[in-house]
Amino acid sequence: VRLVTIGGRVHALTGALGDHGTEAVDVGAVTDMPAEPSAFLAAGGLQHCARALRDATPAHRRPVAGAALDAPIPAPRIVWAVGLNYRDHAAETGRPPPEAPTLFTKSPGSVIAPGEPIVVPDHVRQPDYEGEVAFVIGRVARDVAEPDALHHVAGITVAHDVSARDHQFTTGQFSWSKSFDTFCPLGPVLVTLDEVRHDDLPLETRLNGEVVQSANTSELVHSIPRLVAWISQGLTMQPGDVVLTGTPAGVGAARTPPRWLRDGDTVEITVGGVGTLRNPVVRRGRH
Amino acid sequence: VRLVTIGGRVHALTGALGDHGTEAVDVGAVTDMPAEPSAFLAAGGLQHCARALRDATPAHRRPVAGAALDAPIPAPRIVWAVGLNYRDHAAETGRPPPEAPTLFTKSPGSVIAPGEPIVVPDHVRQPDYEGEVAFVIGRVARDVAEPDALHHVAGITVAHDVSARDHQFTTGQFSWSKSFDTFCPLGPVLVTLDEVRHDDLPLETRLNGEVVQSANTSELVHSIPRLVAWISQGLTMQPGDVVLTGTPAGVGAARTPPRWLRDGDTVEITVGGVGTLRNPVVRRGRH
Repeated sequence: VRLVTIGGRVHALTGALGDHGTEAVDVGAVTDMPAEPSAFLAAGGLQHCARALRDATPAHRRPVAGAALDAPIPAPRIVWAVGLNYRDHAAETGRPPPEAPTLFTKSPGSVIAPGEPIVVPDHVRQPDYEGEVAFVIGRVARDVAEPDALHHVAGITVAHDVSARDHQFTTGQFSWSKSFDTFCPLGPVLVTLDEVRHDDLPLETRLNGEVVQSANTSELVHSIPRLVAWISQGLTMQPGDVVLTGTPAGVGAARTPPRWLRDGDTVEITVGGVGTLRNPVVRRGRH
Repeated sequence: VRLVTIGGRVHALTGALGDHGTEAVDVGAVTDMPAEPSAFLAAGGLQHCARALRDATPAHRRPVAGAALDAPIPAPRIVWAVGLNYRDHAAETGRPPPEAPTLFTKSPGSVIAPGEPIVVPDHVRQPDYEGEVAFVIGRVARDVAEPDALHHVAGITVAHDVSARDHQFTTGQFSWSKSFDTFCPLGPVLVTLDEVRHDDLPLETRLNGEVVQSANTSELVHSIPRLVAWISQGLTMQPGDVVLTGTPAGVGAARTPPRWLRDGDTVEITVGGVGTLRNPVVRRGRH
């Protein structure tokens, strides 16, 4: 199933986003499931989507074209992110791919919807793009073995790990430099794992139409099942928790000269079979 | 005012915790304020505590002695923490105190109440204590100037930044190693800034009764107002957000030989004028 969030409520799509005639069905209005995405997942809402799509009356359906889509999880409890998780990106930063996942977090308050502007604070001098495949936890996960890990994943979405390189390397801790308001565009669609192969997802980032990153999740150092197993060691992951799986080579910081995000830029990130996340960049101030 | 949380509801204390006869008044039951602590702060609940203490009937009061106290903020939206924020602790790790605050996060799911056991996961070989002064945001803060910062702080509490040193230094990113379930004891009391001097708070950590850390917030590299001003640059802090201000010298990792936490240990952290946070340590497995 393919889910979007509209007006804070989970909707199931009748087709692919962008297909003529695809409609969004308000699953909570058809079934007795909670409408808020994390609560929906926690209540086992995914099991009720097929029924919702079947039983929806015209009052429960709306054309998805033109609808303002929220991030699939607009207010996650936590957003984990992984550094250096593609060999080519690790190489361009001059580091070996680490044996353990390099985990940090982004503030839940940094999440924005597809299409919303990334507003770069005036004090950030080196804003950079990072296109990423993200996944969302669907069932409580703690001390999960890698072979069982996918049972705890609701699905895949697209994420933009906007990064202030100047602050990122000042102290060596990444979280704050990637947590400014609007620095985590997410979405538009959450696609369940029966519809895509998590280990064969093509990822492409385009800056004003030019391809700047191109990779495939088959190249991940730490796969999605491995990340669930690793993170959940002694740590309870909850439905709606978001994990960004890392960015491949091609970031602006690794270019000569570096290519920082500018006012008026547009960044598009496409994950094959999942969708495209597009956000404009706004720089206020005098940079 | 001195606040505690009991059964998920904010209560104001009629005296100091531990004083004979101190009662806890259910502020939400007396006034029309929300009972959940973050929502209480967001609604301006602090302004209503004096009235609640005055107007409370016997039905709104309970003896605080023997009550099971929650963490003052049992489910924070985010927990920021600061590394290397006392000169003596920076020195014992062999690093200069950084010019910018070294910020990372602890998982909201790691927060536990005073008295609850810290349960060390089996895979953690080097669990360590860190006694800290914490503060809680009381009003939305974004791009706050340092002289105005204290208007955005609700008050002070006590925190334990339990740390898995083995994982902390494997990848260099601190967040995951400090985010395991039970790794953030918090409380018991949230004391507003009119009752204590934020820049003159004595902090002491005792391991099984022996003093292992002793410092004062006057020695912080980055003061509480400076931290609010720094973190809120382009980043919206919300009421109920928690910030741990860093630990002083004396951690177990800096001892010769290192002193890791053991099954049956008790860690007590006292912040003068605020209170004492006491938690036992449980190690399962064969370490």
